Amino acid sequence: MNDSHAGTIREQDLGSPRGALAGIVVLDLGQVYAGPYCTHLLRSLGATVIKIEPFGGEPIRWRSSGATSGQAFLMLNAGKKGVRLDLKKPQGRDLFLELVRRADVVVENFAPGVMDRLGIGWDVLHAVRPTLVLASGRAYGDHPAAEGMRGMDVTVQAMSGVVTTTGFADQAPVKAGPAVVDFAAGSHLTSAVLAALFQRERTGEGQHVEVAMQDAIVPTLTSNIAGLLEAGGDFPERTGNRHGGLAVCPYNIYPVIDGWLAILCLRPKHWTDLCGLMGRDDLADDPALATPAGRVLKMDDIDDAVSAWTRGLDKAEAFRLLQAADVPAAPVRSLNEVIHDPVLRDRGMLTEIGEGERACTVLGSPLQMGDSPAPAAPAPLLGEDTEEVLRTFLEMSPEDIGRLREESVI
Amino acid sequence: MNDSHAGTIREQDLGSPRGALAGIVVLDLGQVYAGPYCTHLLRSLGATVIKIEPFGGEPIRWRSSGATSGQAFLMLNAGKKGVRLDLKKPQGRDLFLELVRRADVVVENFAPGVMDRLGIGWDVLHAVRPTLVLASGRAYGDHPAAEGMRGMDVTVQAMSGVVTTTGFADQAPVKAGPAVVDFAAGSHLTSAVLAALFQRERTGEGQHVEVAMQDAIVPTLTSNIAGLLEAGGDFPERTGNRHGGLAVCPYNIYPVIDGWLAILCLRPKHWTDLCGLMGRDDLADDPALATPAGRVLKMDDIDDAVSAWTRGLDKAEAFRLLQAADVPAAPVRSLNEVIHDPVLRDRGMLTEIGEGERACTVLGSPLQMGDSPAPAAPAPLLGEDTEEVLRTFLEMSPEDIGRLREESVI
Repeated sequence: MNDSHAGTIREQDLGSPRGALAGIVVLDLGQVYAGPYCTHLLRSLGATVIKIEPFGGEPIRWRSSGATSGQAFLMLNAGKKGVRLDLKKPQGRDLFLELVRRADVVVENFAPGVMDRLGIGWDVLHAVRPTLVLASGRAYGDHPAAEGMRGMDVTVQAMSGVVTTTGFADQAPVKAGPAVVDFAAGSHLTSAVLAALFQRERTGEGQHVEVAMQDAIVPTLTSNIAGLLEAGGDFPERTGNRHGGLAVCPYNIYPVIDGWLAILCLRPKHWTDLCGLMGRDDLADDPALATPAGRVLKMDDIDDAVSAWTRGLDKAEAFRLLQAADVPAAPVRSLNEVIHDPVLRDRGMLTEIGEGERACTVLGSPLQMGDSPAPAAPAPLLGEDTEEVLRTFLEMSPEDIGRLREESVI
Repeated sequence: MNDSHAGTIREQDLGSPRGALAGIVVLDLGQVYAGPYCTHLLRSLGATVIKIEPFGGEPIRWRSSGATSGQAFLMLNAGKKGVRLDLKKPQGRDLFLELVRRADVVVENFAPGVMDRLGIGWDVLHAVRPTLVLASGRAYGDHPAAEGMRGMDVTVQAMSGVVTTTGFADQAPVKAGPAVVDFAAGSHLTSAVLAALFQRERTGEGQHVEVAMQDAIVPTLTSNIAGLLEAGGDFPERTGNRHGGLAVCPYNIYPVIDGWLAILCLRPKHWTDLCGLMGRDDLADDPALATPAGRVLKMDDIDDAVSAWTRGLDKAEAFRLLQAADVPAAPVRSLNEVIHDPVLRDRGMLTEIGEGERACTVLGSPLQMGDSPAPAAPAPLLGEDTEEVLRTFLEMSPEDIGRLREESVI
C-alpha cells in the first residue's frame, strides 16, 4: 500500500486478498464484457473492486432466466463488492463522488458522452481526485468521425476486419465464435490502468486512459495486413483455416477419422519431420518445397498430401504421433471437452464454487503471478455490499444509509 | 525513474521517449507474435526494449521475401533496439546475464524448457538480478499434463474451443481469421509485467509471471460457456453469426444489396426502434417478443424479418438509418477499407514511416494514455544496435566488441 495516497481504503477493511494491487480501490461502472473483464483482472491482482450497478442491475446480470444472475455475469464478477446506486439522482452522483475521493481507479465502458451527461466526466473526477486513474473503454474511441458510434463485439468484428477475414473464401463471411473484441478491449484496458498506476508512483498524478475495441483487435490482423501490404493490395480476404497471410504451409485444419486436427509447420524441421511421419521423403527432398514461399505456391498439393495421411488416423493417434515428432499440432476440441480440461481446471481458469442457489462456475485469471495469488470468490448479488461499503468506506451512519434507501438512491 | 533500482540504464542514454515506463529496460527474447506484441506495448509506454535475436534473426523477420525484413516483423518491432547475440555460446550467455544485471524485465515465449536449457531459467536470472521481472508466454502453461506441448495460434485455437465455436453449424469448423490467441497472450503478458513492476515498487522484489495462450483466450468464450452451462451441456457448438450463448436476438450479420451488415439489439429500446425502422410495429407490440428469451425462441422468424428489410438497402443507407436510430450496427468492411480507415490512422494504429528500402507500415498501441505519448519509430535491422547497446549499456570497449564479433558471439 502506498501511504502517500491519503484516504485510500486499507485492503484489510474490505478483506481483499493480498496481491500486486493490494490496497488499490477500483470503482467499476463496467457493463457486459470489456469493462467487467478489466476489473475482473484487477480484482485477481488483489485490488478491491466495488461494482456499482443501477437499480435494474447491469445489462448482463439477468440475461439468462431473469430469476437469478446469469452464468456469464457470475463468471466475470467474482470477488467484487456489489453496490446499487442511482447515478441519475443528484444524491447518487454526490455519493459516487465521495467514493471517488477515496478510490484509485474508475473503470467505465459506457457509450460516448454518457459519463459527461451523468456529470462525472474526466474534468470533474480529476478535480475531485487528482491522483485518480479514469479508464474508458470505447468502441472506436474519441474521434470526430466516431462521434456517437456505439459498438459491441459483433459490430466491431464487422467494422475492424475480423468478419471479412474469418470463414472460407467461397462462403459467407462469419464472425469469430467467441467475443474476441470485447475481451481484447478488456485486457488492453487492464494494461492501460496498470501503466497509469505505475506512472503515478513517479509523478503523483492520475490520468485518463482510453482503449477502443477496434484498436485493440486490429493488431490480431498483423498476418492478414502484412499479406495484403506485401501483395500490394491484391490478396484474398478469407483464407479458411490457412495462414491469414498465406506465409506458412502446411498450416490448416485437416480431417481425421473422428473429427479435425490442426497442424502447422513453422520451422524447416517441422516440415521434414512431418514428411517423415507421412512416409513422404520425396516431398522432404523436393527443393521446390524447401522454403515456406515454395510450399505456399503448392499449398493445394501439400494439403492434399497431409489430408491423405490424416484421414487414415483418429484424433488421438494423429496427435500422439505429431507430438512425439515435435510437430505443432492439436485436435479440434469440443466446448464440453474444453470446460472439463484438467489443465485449465488446475490452473484455476474455471472453478465451481458456492452451494445451492449460489452454486456457479467462476472464471480465473490468465495472469499467473509468482507472488500474487488470485483466490476464487463468488460474484455479489445486486447491492449485496452497499451498506458495508458505505459504512466502512465513507463512514456513514445507519441513519444516513437508511434515508438513502428510502429515497431510492441506493 | 526509480533511483532505487541501481544499475538501471537511464532512459536518455538510449533515447526512448518519455512515458509511463520511462527508465524501464526490457530484454526481449520474444518470437513471432505473443512475446514481441507484449514488448511492443511496453515500448509504446516508454520502456527501452532491447530485442535480442539469434544469428538467423527471429522466425518472422525473413518470412516474406527473404531479402528484407517482412512487414509483419516491421509492424511489431517498431522502436526496439536490435541486438544480435548467440545465446548458445558460453560468452553469449555471459553477455546476456550482464545485460540482465542492468535490466528490469525479460520477456520470452520459447517452447517449454528452452530457457533452462540455455542456462537462463528463472532461478539463474533471479539470483543474478533479484529485482528482475521474468515474463514467460507459453501455449498451455507450466503443468505436468502440458509438458513439452508447444502451441501456436491455430493449434491453440483448436484446443481451446475457438475453432469449434466459429463457423456455421452445418459446415466444417473454421478458425478465427486473425491470430486472436497469440495477441490475447501478448496483451495479458503485458498486464502481468506491469502488475509485477507495480508490486516491485512496494516490495523491492521481482517475480516470475506467466501467461498461457489457452488461459488468455478462454475468457472470450464466456457467452458460449455460459450458454452451455445454463443448458446443462446440450448446446450448439457453432452458432454462425448469432450470439455465442444464443442469449440475444436480433444478433446476426444480415445481407444488404452490396454486402453484409451486423445488427444487434442488446436493450429493449434497440428492438422497438429497429421494429420502427422496419415498419414492423406488429413485432414491437407482440408480447411474446418483448424479452430477449422470447425473441430467441423465434429467432428464425425474426432474422427473416430483419433480412427482408436489409435486403432492400445498401450498406451505407442501412448503416445510416440504424445509426440515426441508435441501434447498434456496423457494415462488414473489407481489410482494404480497414487499413485506410481515417479513425485508425488518426489514432496512430497504422502509420507509414521511413523512406526507400526502409519504408514500411508500423503498428501503434491500443493503450491511449493521457500522459504517455507513443511516437512511431522504425523496427531495427538485425543487430543494428548491438554495438551501441554494448557500449552505452555495458560500457564495453571497441576492442572487446570487436573480439566478440570475430568470435561470432554477436
